[in-house]
Amino acid sequence: MKTKVVVGVDLGGTNTKVGLVDRYGEVLAFRRFKTDSHLPFADFLQRLKGHIDEMVETTTEDIEVVSVGIGAPNVNHFTGEIVDPANLEWPSGVKLTELAEAEIGLPVRATNDANVAALGEMEFGAGKGMKNFVVLTLGTGLGSGVVVDGKLLLGQDGLAAEIGHVNVRPDGRNCNCGLKGCLETYVSATGIKRTVYKLLADRQVDSRLRNLSFNELTGEMITEAALAGDAIAAEAFIYTGEILGTKLADIVAYFNPEAIILSGGLTRAGSLLLQPSRKMMEERLFKAFRGRIKLEISPVTGSNDAVLGAAALAWQEYEN
Amino acid sequence: MKTKVVVGVDLGGTNTKVGLVDRYGEVLAFRRFKTDSHLPFADFLQRLKGHIDEMVETTTEDIEVVSVGIGAPNVNHFTGEIVDPANLEWPSGVKLTELAEAEIGLPVRATNDANVAALGEMEFGAGKGMKNFVVLTLGTGLGSGVVVDGKLLLGQDGLAAEIGHVNVRPDGRNCNCGLKGCLETYVSATGIKRTVYKLLADRQVDSRLRNLSFNELTGEMITEAALAGDAIAAEAFIYTGEILGTKLADIVAYFNPEAIILSGGLTRAGSLLLQPSRKMMEERLFKAFRGRIKLEISPVTGSNDAVLGAAALAWQEYEN
Repeated sequence: MKTKVVVGVDLGGTNTKVGLVDRYGEVLAFRRFKTDSHLPFADFLQRLKGHIDEMVETTTEDIEVVSVGIGAPNVNHFTGEIVDPANLEWPSGVKLTELAEAEIGLPVRATNDANVAALGEMEFGAGKGMKNFVVLTLGTGLGSGVVVDGKLLLGQDGLAAEIGHVNVRPDGRNCNCGLKGCLETYVSATGIKRTVYKLLADRQVDSRLRNLSFNELTGEMITEAALAGDAIAAEAFIYTGEILGTKLADIVAYFNPEAIILSGGLTRAGSLLLQPSRKMMEERLFKAFRGRIKLEISPVTGSNDAVLGAAALAWQEYEN
Repeated sequence: MKTKVVVGVDLGGTNTKVGLVDRYGEVLAFRRFKTDSHLPFADFLQRLKGHIDEMVETTTEDIEVVSVGIGAPNVNHFTGEIVDPANLEWPSGVKLTELAEAEIGLPVRATNDANVAALGEMEFGAGKGMKNFVVLTLGTGLGSGVVVDGKLLLGQDGLAAEIGHVNVRPDGRNCNCGLKGCLETYVSATGIKRTVYKLLADRQVDSRLRNLSFNELTGEMITEAALAGDAIAAEAFIYTGEILGTKLADIVAYFNPEAIILSGGLTRAGSLLLQPSRKMMEERLFKAFRGRIKLEISPVTGSNDAVLGAAALAWQEYEN
């Protein structure tokens, strides 16, 4: 009997990753290629199809591909369209699922990348066996996926869980979205960079970060500096963690989750981020929740993680 | 054939209301009696059972009672126990559903009063036909119920949707719960009373409310004064509505609901509350949501409303 597998696709602004994944989350084949969104979307789909076909042909196992899951920025879960993508050059409204089904000849389901992260945690990561949890991805921005009673929280238009854009301070930092004081302007790689610059202005203590321009500075450099004991970088993580912790307490009041799982580049700082976040969350928690909420960093790491999440979506498509 | 009916019970700190309700939300019989929680819980149950029996005996229709739904403060939806009730004198942990089933001899389901309000709106009120909406009850405190994909949001321990205790200001007003700056310390009958006192201190304008002590002042008096053009009362509603509106924008970012429904005493102020709330919500909404979220005051009013919600819970118990 053939082994059933799905295709998991992580469509990103720069690179696209694609893998063949079995029901247990084992990756049988994996490829990465340039998204090149300056070329037409049809061109992207042909290249994607080519990679899938080659992976299927060259695998030594006897497999049957049953469905495709795609995680991409700004996908509307219900329509399968990519709407106003900030980091892709295709026009808004590209019919991702419809066109991909036509090109690939398999059932395709797509959702936004933060939802995919939540599905990946549920099937193969820290959310395994959990029915109620929240995933926050701390990358360039702050993405979020919420699982309620074992299913993705989608809301009326498939746009629920925009936690990156809840308000921290009414007249706070300007956000890309046009609002002020959104959570992701504080808690993300970009957010901590802005915090470092604020602290470099406020404090007089020496720091290796004083030698870097705003455009040079990255979240990784801040993490490295903090781990090496740099005072500004360390304070930036406390500042970030305390704001995150305040909002984690709100997230718990809204959703009563079993756990909150953090993933993304900023979590490489480990306890530098986790410790102030957890402390502030516990201080601000409604008493019924105190000491009961797991706050952890995702164990799903490496280049396969988003592909596994997309594969989880594909399995959901196939089994329902 | 007998008409199937359920019993809806609204167990409150002062009064308990009980009704026989058919599948269409018609109330066939209704009673109100003193909860008298200084007497043992067993005594309360005997009186409740007595009222139900008398209602069934005296009704002229040929009915069959199939289940009982109870809304009460601080009920854990999963265990059916009343935990730490602020306005009831029974000890914490009273096994409400278990003991009520034994006494009444029918299936009993109980949940907290804000969840009941949400179920009532879904079956018989402004949420009819909606799959995703949020109900906020603005009474002495701020209760909330969230419906996601047609079902109550419960969370891991049945404690989700504690929206009264999300944070407005980190070092804000002291809350009964021990935290500071909780939403219900601003947006509730008690909250607007505190706001009036702040404004009486800050402003020098004349106001009829300057003649009332803190303990005399009620939410209804503030509503009446505002409707009569009192400057302090009117400003208090703007202040309250603007804080509410800010949090409504967050609620939309979390849940992407079709509508947010406001109920409870404070909503008698109508557009005095609704107008500043809606304006601030729209200003703070993530752009994908702007102009799309219904914000309305519940049409379910009068003394039957909580009984209808409890009846909706009973029908859910019977049909699932």
